[in-house]
Amino acid sequence: MMELGQAIAIAGSAIGAGIAVISGIGAGIGQGYAAGKGAEAVGNQPEAKGDIISTMLLGAAVAESTGIYGLVISIILIFANPWV
Amino acid sequence: MMELGQAIAIAGSAIGAGIAVISGIGAGIGQGYAAGKGAEAVGNQPEAKGDIISTMLLGAAVAESTGIYGLVISIILIFANPWV
Amino acid sequence: MMELGQAIAIAGSAIGAGIAVISGIGAGIGQGYAAGKGAEAVGNQPEAKGDIISTMLLGAAVAESTGIYGLVISIILIFANPWV
Amino acid sequence: MMELGQAIAIAGSAIGAGIAVISGIGAGIGQGYAAGKGAEAVGNQPEAKGDIISTMLLGAAVAESTGIYGLVISIILIFANPWV
Amino acid sequence: MMELGQAIAIAGSAIGAGIAVISGIGAGIGQGYAAGKGAEAVGNQPEAKGDIISTMLLGAAVAESTGIYGLVISIILIFANPWV
Amino acid sequence: MMELGQAIAIAGSAIGAGIAVISGIGAGIGQGYAAGKGAEAVGNQPEAKGDIISTMLLGAAVAESTGIYGLVISIILIFANPWV
Amino acid sequence: MMELGQAIAIAGSAIGAGIAVISGIGAGIGQGYAAGKGAEAVGNQPEAKGDIISTMLLGAAVAESTGIYGLVISIILIFANPWV
Amino acid sequence: MMELGQAIAIAGSAIGAGIAVISGIGAGIGQGYAAGKGAEAVGNQPEAKGDIISTMLLGAAVAESTGIYGLVISIILIFANPWV
Amino acid sequence: MMELGQAIAIAGSAIGAGIAVISGIGAGIGQGYAAGKGAEAVGNQPEAKGDIISTMLLGAAVAESTGIYGLVISIILIFANPWV
Amino acid sequence: MMELGQAIAIAGSAIGAGIAVISGIGAGIGQGYAAGKGAEAVGNQPEAKGDIISTMLLGAAVAESTGIYGLVISIILIFANPWV
Amino acid sequence: MMELGQAIAIAGSAIGAGIAVISGIGAGIGQGYAAGKGAEAVGNQPEAKGDIISTMLLGAAVAESTGIYGLVISIILIFANPWV
Amino acid sequence: MMELGQAIAIAGSAIGAGIAVISGIGAGIGQGYAAGKGAEAVGNQPEAKGDIISTMLLGAAVAESTGIYGLVISIILIFANPWV
Amino acid sequence: MMELGQAIAIAGSAIGAGIAVISGIGAGIGQGYAAGKGAEAVGNQPEAKGDIISTMLLGAAVAESTGIYGLVISIILIFANPWV
Amino acid sequence: MMELGQAIAIAGSAIGAGIAVISGIGAGIGQGYAAGKGAEAVGNQPEAKGDIISTMLLGAAVAESTGIYGLVISIILIFANPWV
Repeated sequence: MMELGQAIAIAGSAIGAGIAVISGIGAGIGQGYAAGKGAEAVGNQPEAKGDIISTMLLGAAVAESTGIYGLVISIILIFANPWV
Repeated sequence: MMELGQAIAIAGSAIGAGIAVISGIGAGIGQGYAAGKGAEAVGNQPEAKGDIISTMLLGAAVAESTGIYGLVISIILIFANPWV
Repeated sequence: MMELGQAIAIAGSAIGAGIAVISGIGAGIGQGYAAGKGAEAVGNQPEAKGDIISTMLLGAAVAESTGIYGLVISIILIFANPWV
Repeated sequence: MMELGQAIAIAGSAIGAGIAVISGIGAGIGQGYAAGKGAEAVGNQPEAKGDIISTMLLGAAVAESTGIYGLVISIILIFANPWV
Repeated sequence: MMELGQAIAIAGSAIGAGIAVISGIGAGIGQGYAAGKGAEAVGNQPEAKGDIISTMLLGAAVAESTGIYGLVISIILIFANPWV
Repeated sequence: MMELGQAIAIAGSAIGAGIAVISGIGAGIGQGYAAGKGAEAVGNQPEAKGDIISTMLLGAAVAESTGIYGLVISIILIFANPWV
Repeated sequence: MMELGQAIAIAGSAIGAGIAVISGIGAGIGQGYAAGKGAEAVGNQPEAKGDIISTMLLGAAVAESTGIYGLVISIILIFANPWV
Repeated sequence: MMELGQAIAIAGSAIGAGIAVISGIGAGIGQGYAAGKGAEAVGNQPEAKGDIISTMLLGAAVAESTGIYGLVISIILIFANPWV
Repeated sequence: MMELGQAIAIAGSAIGAGIAVISGIGAGIGQGYAAGKGAEAVGNQPEAKGDIISTMLLGAAVAESTGIYGLVISIILIFANPWV
Repeated sequence: MMELGQAIAIAGSAIGAGIAVISGIGAGIGQGYAAGKGAEAVGNQPEAKGDIISTMLLGAAVAESTGIYGLVISIILIFANPWV
Repeated sequence: MMELGQAIAIAGSAIGAGIAVISGIGAGIGQGYAAGKGAEAVGNQPEAKGDIISTMLLGAAVAESTGIYGLVISIILIFANPWV
Repeated sequence: MMELGQAIAIAGSAIGAGIAVISGIGAGIGQGYAAGKGAEAVGNQPEAKGDIISTMLLGAAVAESTGIYGLVISIILIFANPWV
Repeated sequence: MMELGQAIAIAGSAIGAGIAVISGIGAGIGQGYAAGKGAEAVGNQPEAKGDIISTMLLGAAVAESTGIYGLVISIILIFANPWV
Repeated sequence: MMELGQAIAIAGSAIGAGIAVISGIGAGIGQGYAAGKGAEAVGNQPEAKGDIISTMLLGAAVAESTGIYGLVISIILIFANPWV
């Protein structure tokens, strides 16, 4: 039988995990902006395609980090939760 | 018979799963922006279509990641939920 | 007779399903932006219509994915809900 | 006589159905943007009217999908609700 | 005499109906944008008035759909509510 | 004497009616945008005044529909409420 | 003596009335935008003042409608409330 | 002695009155935009000052209406409240 | 000794008063926009300073009205509150 | 000893006072915009510095009023509170 | 021993103090805008640096006032709180 | 043993402290804008670097103040809290 | 057996951890903007690729810090929580 | 055994800590804007790279401060919390 106390802790952790992964919204908007600007730039200077893509991906990789932070916290709250 | 405690844990997990997948809003806006910019760029330089599309898709694929994070957390909360 | 516990779990799942499908807002805005830019681009270069549409649809298909994630989670919460 | 438990499940489902259909806001804004851009483009190149409209409608049809997802989930929650 | 359980179900349905019809905000903004762009385009090319208006109305009709979805769900929740 | 159950149903319906009519915000913003664009266009091409106004009003009439949906739901919830 | 049930119904109606009249925000912003655009247009073409003002007022009158809907619902909820 | 029921009705009416008058935010933003555009236009065409101001005030007067609606509902809820 | 009922009415009135005066946000943003536009216009046409300022102040005075509505409702709720 | 009733009234007044002074956000944004525009205008026409500053300050003084309304209500709720 | 009543009053005052000082957000955004515009203007006309800075600071000082209002209310709620 | 009353006061103070320091969001956005504009200006006029930086920092220092207000209130609520 | 008290503390900590990591939204948007601007700049001046990337990464690294703060607080609340 | 009172205080502190660190959103957006503008400026004037970067970092360092305030309050609430 599950205790009421444990259930409250679990519900709190699950909602917290859902909120945490939302931090990816920022990265999603930002990276999509980068993708659009990159496509525009490649269209204007196709010969610089390699440079543009590597710059875009480098910047997007940095932005990705904050989305990954949210994923990590979310997974920790679910599987490595030290409390429940 | 379902216990009250388990029910609270389930309700919390279900709401958490719904919140988690919302992280796709950011990616959806961003990728749509990229698609619009890509279509505009192709219209201006049809001869660079291949380069523009590959750049756009590369950037969009990176942005997609944060949406997938939300999906993963959401599915984990529903099917691989270690608690209920 | 429906137990109170099960009712709370169902209410939570139904609200979670409603929240999950909202993730389509981002894709809807983004794809509409893409459609507008595509129509503008076709107006300027009608001869490149095929290229523009295929680029736009490719980008929109990627953006669609996050909306589908929300739909999937929503349907899972309603019909494949492992809990209730 | 309606049980309290069932009433809570129904109230939750009804509110969830109302929230689900809101996902059409994104599509509404996006498609309206597309309509405006399309009208502008037709004004500038009336001779390309057919191409512009078909592009606009194609893009809008894709964007419509996320609004339909919300409608589907909403109707399922009301009429095909497996729980109540 | 109205039972408490039924009253909660009714209150939830009524609030859900009110929320559902809000999905028209997106269509309202988008169509108004289309109307403004259409008026501007007609001002610049009065000779293309027919083409512009038909394009604008076509696009607005598609955008209208999401507003109608909300209306439909709202009316279903009030008059065809299978629960109360 | 008014029962508590009926009172909850009434309060829910009244709040739902208030929320429903808010859907007019979108139409209000959109139509105002159209009015501004129309006035600007008339200022630039006074000779096309008739065409501009008819286009603007046509577009605004379509946008009005979503505001009317909200009004209809609101009035139904107050006067034709099948529940209370 | 006022019953508790009636008091809850009144409180709900009063809050609903307050929410309903907020729908005027959209019309307020939109009409103000129209006023600004109209003043700008008159400044550029003073000779077209009559045409600009009549167009602006026509558009604003349509936009006003959604604000009036909110007022009507609000007054109905207060004075013609069929419930309390 | 004040009954609890009456107190709830009063509290609800007071909060509703506060919410109602917020509808002036839209008019405030819109009219300020109109004022700024009007000042700019007068700076560019001082000789058309009369026309610009009368246009601006006409538009602002229409926008004012929604703010007044909020005030009216607010005062009715306080002084002409038919319930308390 | 203060009754519980009166206390609830007072708390509701105080919160309502606080909310009411927030309606000044719109006027504050709008008037500040007007001030900035006015300063810019004076910088470009110092010789039209009188006309610009009088136009700006006229427009700002109209916008001020909605802020004053909020103040009036707020003071009424505190000092002329007919209920407590 | 403080009664529970008085405590609720005080807590409501304190929160209301905090909300009231937030109305300064609008004035803060608006005045900062005015300051930036003023500095830009002075940089372009240093010889009109006096005129620009006096216009800017005049406009900002009007905008300040809504912030002061919030302050006044806030102080009244704390020190001149007629209820507690 | 602290009474429950006093504790509620204190908690309300503390939260109110936290809300009050948020009114500085508006001033912070506005002043930062002013600083950016000022730096840009100095870069274009270094010889007018003194005039630009004094104008910017004058405008920012006025905007600061609303932030200070929030601080004042916040400190009053903590240290000069007439109630607890 | 900690009393329940004190615990409520502490929880309220801690949440209030967290809310208070959020007032730094405005300053953060504003100063970042200033930094970007400053970098852009230095890139255009490297010879005016000293003037630009001193102007930028002066403006940013003023904007910083509102962030510091939040910090001060936050620290007072934690360490100099006169109540707990 | 888990006590109720401990469960409340855990639930609060888990939700707090989820909220904390959201601070990465700002960094994600900002860095994505930087990535897009960087890709655009590289497309215009491929020969300055090294300088542009190093500047972009330097700026992004600073912006990253606030995202890391959120991660740190989040992990502390989960693993180094001094209370539970 | 943990008391209920202490648990409420801890939960409040943990949520407050999570809210506090969110103040980094503003700094993250602002610094990312600065990074993008800096990269753009370096692309246009590579020879001024040192000046641009130092200006950008100086401005970003000031903006960082508000993010650090949030971190400090957050850590104080967790580790140096004088209450629990």
